Order: sequence, then C-alpha cells, then structure tokens
Amino acid sequence: MKNKEMVEKEYRFSDRSVSVYFDTSFGMLQDMVDKENTILITDENIFAKQTEKFSGWRTIVIQAGEQYKNQQAVDEVIEQLIEFNADRQTIIIGVGGGVVTDITGYAASVYMRGLKFGFVPTSILAMVDASIGGKNGVDVGVYKNLVGVINHPQFLLYDYSFLETLPEKEWINGFAEIIKHACIKDEPMFQLLQEKSLDYFHSSRENIGKLIQQNVEIKYNVVVNDEYETGERKLLNFGHTIGHAIENTAKLPHGSAISIGMIAACIISEKINGFSKAHTEKVKQLLSEYHLPVAFNIDKEKTWNILLHDKKKSGTDMNFVVLDDIGKASIKKIPLPELRQIFDALK
Amino acid sequence: MKNKEMVEKEYRFSDRSVSVYFDTSFGMLQDMVDKENTILITDENIFAKQTEKFSGWRTIVIQAGEQYKNQQAVDEVIEQLIEFNADRQTIIIGVGGGVVTDITGYAASVYMRGLKFGFVPTSILAMVDASIGGKNGVDVGVYKNLVGVINHPQFLLYDYSFLETLPEKEWINGFAEIIKHACIKDEPMFQLLQEKSLDYFHSSRENIGKLIQQNVEIKYNVVVNDEYETGERKLLNFGHTIGHAIENTAKLPHGSAISIGMIAACIISEKINGFSKAHTEKVKQLLSEYHLPVAFNIDKEKTWNILLHDKKKSGTDMNFVVLDDIGKASIKKIPLPELRQIFDALK
Repeated sequence: MKNKEMVEKEYRFSDRSVSVYFDTSFGMLQDMVDKENTILITDENIFAKQTEKFSGWRTIVIQAGEQYKNQQAVDEVIEQLIEFNADRQTIIIGVGGGVVTDITGYAASVYMRGLKFGFVPTSILAMVDASIGGKNGVDVGVYKNLVGVINHPQFLLYDYSFLETLPEKEWINGFAEIIKHACIKDEPMFQLLQEKSLDYFHSSRENIGKLIQQNVEIKYNVVVNDEYETGERKLLNFGHTIGHAIENTAKLPHGSAISIGMIAACIISEKINGFSKAHTEKVKQLLSEYHLPVAFNIDKEKTWNILLHDKKKSGTDMNFVVLDDIGKASIKKIPLPELRQIFDALK
Repeated sequence: MKNKEMVEKEYRFSDRSVSVYFDTSFGMLQDMVDKENTILITDENIFAKQTEKFSGWRTIVIQAGEQYKNQQAVDEVIEQLIEFNADRQTIIIGVGGGVVTDITGYAASVYMRGLKFGFVPTSILAMVDASIGGKNGVDVGVYKNLVGVINHPQFLLYDYSFLETLPEKEWINGFAEIIKHACIKDEPMFQLLQEKSLDYFHSSRENIGKLIQQNVEIKYNVVVNDEYETGERKLLNFGHTIGHAIENTAKLPHGSAISIGMIAACIISEKINGFSKAHTEKVKQLLSEYHLPVAFNIDKEKTWNILLHDKKKSGTDMNFVVLDDIGKASIKKIPLPELRQIFDALK
C-alpha cells in the first residue's frame, strides 16, 4: 500500500481514528477498500474531467456548485444508495471539493444511521479545510451549513494530480483558508506566504504538497484537541461569521466571502481587542496578493439579518473570533447592539 | 420539582445521561426548562385534544401519522426553527407518539449540528419503545427508518393523563412492543400479560403505569449495555425485520405489522432454532387476546424486495432475531436463499 513519496498520518478522535495519506494516488483506493462494497460520490465537473479514474467503480454523480449543497441533493444521493442496495457493509467515498465531501459525509452519516466513509479531496479548499474535522452538512437557503452532523471519515487520500485540472479561481479560493490558518495559528507561515506567491505554489507539486500537508496538520491539531468545538476549535471560524452571512446572498465563492469576512474581523479586532491597524493592512495586502477580494461592498441590512441566525449566536451575544496578533486569535462575546454598531461603520 | 408519586431514574450513556421522570405531569416542564428558550413539537391530533397544555409555549405542529414521518416533515420543522430564531441555547421537546419523537430527535440532532432535546411520549408505543434508546429518524418511501441518527434526549417526562385521550387502537398498538419485550426478555411478564387483559391495564392508571415503567426499564437496560447495537440490543428487533417490510406497503399500524412479524419470526425460530410449535401458539394466543392481528396475509414478492433493504442485511446474509424460549432470544445469521425458502412457506 506504500509508494515512495506517500506520508501516512493518523489522528485519533473519541470514537475513531482518521488515517490521512498524503502524496499518493487515486489508484491506491483499490488496495484500501473492497470495490464491490464501495460507492463513490463525485460531481459532474470532476467526473467529466477525470472519467477514466471512475471506471469500474459504482459512482453517484451530483451537480456541482454550492447552490446544490442542500437537502434535495442529499435526498437524491439517498435514493441512489437505495438503488445500489447499499447496506451497513458499504463504504462511501466522496471524491471532490467541499460540496461533495460535505454531502458525502452527511448522507453517509444518516443512511441506515451511519455507514463508513472516506474522502478524496480534489480542491485546495477541500484538502486544507472542508474535508477535515468531521463537520458535514448542507445549507438551508441562505443559511450556510445550518443542518448537519459531526462525524469523521475513516480516511483521507491526497492525490495532487487532481490539482492539475483545478481551475485558477479554485486555487485562489483555497488560499483564503490557508491565509486564515496563518492569521490565527502560524505567524511563520504568514511570512512564508508574504515571501512567496500563488505562482510559486502553483508551479510545483512539491511546493503546494508541502503547504497542504502543513495546513492539514494545523487544522487536525486544533480539531483533535477540541472535537466538539467547546474552545480552541472556534478560532477556525475566523472570518466566517460575516463571511458566511455574505456568501450565499452575494453569491460569492467561499474563499472570496471569507476574505472579506477576515478583513471585517480584523477591523472589529481593532475596535474591541487592540489589534493594530498596521496588521489589518498586512492581512489585507496578503489577501490581495493572492487575488482575493478585499472591498467591503455588501448589502448590510440583508447581511445583518442572516448574521442573526449564525450558529455562534448565543442569546443576545455573538461569539466572535478576533485577532490578538498575526498568528494568534481569541474569542470575544460581543453584545449584538455593539456588534451592530461596529458592523454598520464597516466600509 | 418533586411530586408525591413521581419516580426519577437516570440512565448513563457514553456522552450523556438521560433523566426519566415517571408518573409526573406535563406542567412540570415549566420547572425543568426555560420557557423562553424552548420550542415544543407535537402533532395536530394531540394539539387539538390538549390545546390548553401548549398555552404559552412556542409550538410547532406537524401532521399526524406514519405517512408523514419523512424528510419533508423534517425540512418543515427546520424552516420553523429558523423562523423561531432557534439557536444552540434552544431546547426542543417532542410531545407525542413515535412519529413526533422520531422527527423531533432527528431534527434537533441535525439543526446546527445538534441542539438539546427532550421527549414527552403520549402513546403507549412511544412510552415503552419509540422514545427510548436514541434512535431517531424518518422513513424513505416504503423503507422504515432508513435515514436517521443515534442521539439521546436529555430527559423523558411521563404524564399518564395523555393516555386518557389515546384512542383504543393506539392502546392495542402499544401492547405489541410490550409483548415483544416479554418474548425476548421477561417470561414472568409474559405470564402476567396472559393472566391479565387489555381492560385490566386500561382501567387503572396504576396498572398501566406500573407496566410502562417495567417496560422502560427493560428497554433501557438493554440499550445502556449496548448503545451502538453491536450485540444484545439487536434482540429488540424481534418481529421487526418482516414487520417493517410489511408496515408501509400494507399500510398497517406499527403494532399490527410487528405482531404479524413476531409470529413469522416464531415460525422461523421453529425451523432453524428448535423453538417449539406449542410456544409459537402461546405467542399467537397472547397477541390475539390483546386484539393484535395474527394472520399472515401479505404480498410476499413485494415484502421480500423490501426485506432486502433491511438495515440488518449484511451482504448475502440476514441477521435475524429468533426465540430460544419464551423470554429468551438470540441472533442467527440466515443466508438469504434459506430465509427466502422459509419465508415463501409462511402462511
């Protein structure tokens, strides 16, 4: 099961271990699972671009795009699992970006009250973020990830050859979460990102592979220590409170939405947490260098109303992630009227 | 929080304790939860009969009947939770029979990846079975409970006054699960049921209260010892493999379906487990005395095809619950062709 470059890591949670195979190939799946008892789920774009990879595998193909990350897509997956006679011995593997891994993890978690599942993330965003941590679920209208479960896959398999056909805009999208990790946890990585560029990482499988593995380790270390998000894990929501509120209304890619959300969170950090204006500028600069949007040009009334349904709202307060410094974040409970005032002044 | 008769029991699971309050009153809810942060879910029948009980509580009213235990009902509950601005501080309480408690437990488990919830079971079936054990979910077409999660409520509250307005056919329905418990676990209770009658239990709150509490304890003891159904808990599926397969196609009440399923399982127990024909007759007799159907008059082809999607199917075998004796059951792995042969001969 080994190949030359492959690196295997194992992360332990309360009820299971997740095996992560870096720098390996999709073909390895054949040695990992019984093909007869396995069903793959992917989206129409990946299936069209990499059809040969799916040859001989029973495959459910879903529609591509965040607008299809909804209950109807899950219902359709379940209908197809029934048609394939999936039972409790069946393993489900999601091959795709965050929409595919979210829907796969959620459908596998509720079908027959839970089948085993694995992920082959194919986008940078899914590789460094979406497929990690056990959160699986769907949007309900404009509300992001409103419905879902926490349940970990058995394994993740990283095949960087999928990145060769990943559109440029998806590369940019993924770097938003990488910059987020740098902002909240890793000042040296922030510096590395400042020194290098998207081209540098795009030009070599080794460069991007190393960065991805580093980000997976950052996220797993946080998640393993706080599986049910009672403390440190909440920091991963940096940029996501306002980011999620604008993503579905403004129909922005996830990376663009949280880029704007991170800048808003930096400004809020200035107001209530003594974060320096110069640092906000550095974050803005870095996002901009990785071609992410930085202008706060949104419908405030609409956004505020969605914000009020955020999972991090607790009664009349919002648990908000602020930066203390670059590479260090914390949670502040902000009363909604105060948050509203700062929010209204954002520009 | 105590009243004179109330008995409180606590059952511990891996991630939580369930508090069970027997012989208490619905009004106690006010002392148990913060009314402002609580949303009740009930069905149209219970709401119509007991409207005054819901006064002052935010209440979601769903359609009554097994045919509405589906994803659409869950979607509608979620829409209403959004309208009520439910957040992670909100507690959801299902007040009703098995359909209400299943939908409540499932919706509460996936909304924002899980809110706290409690149950007030109002039918015998929900009191002795459906509300206990953490299995919550919905049907998909003819497939019973195909989608769901295992997740326990914080508490169960038993108010026997709900039984006063429970229709006679629902009393009968509930006794199927009580007889099941007797068959697999409790020979003395089997004898008690033989000696007494539906009228005996119906006529006095003390008689039915005692029987309900006994059945809750049987079920919780099994479930606490085998939370994830790796062993003993499977025995609770006695009568349910064939029962579930006929329930939605023949549009039978759950109790009627599993009554027929239990007799089929007794005959299968004769064929492969040396269970005596005389004992099958005793089970049949008892079901009959409690007004449950015992004739195996079903569409076999249709039933068999549904059976093949049972959650207890494992590859080419079915894990089937058989009786060793009255009060003692075990699991036998039956190859599908052999099961098919016995099934075809049932009459």
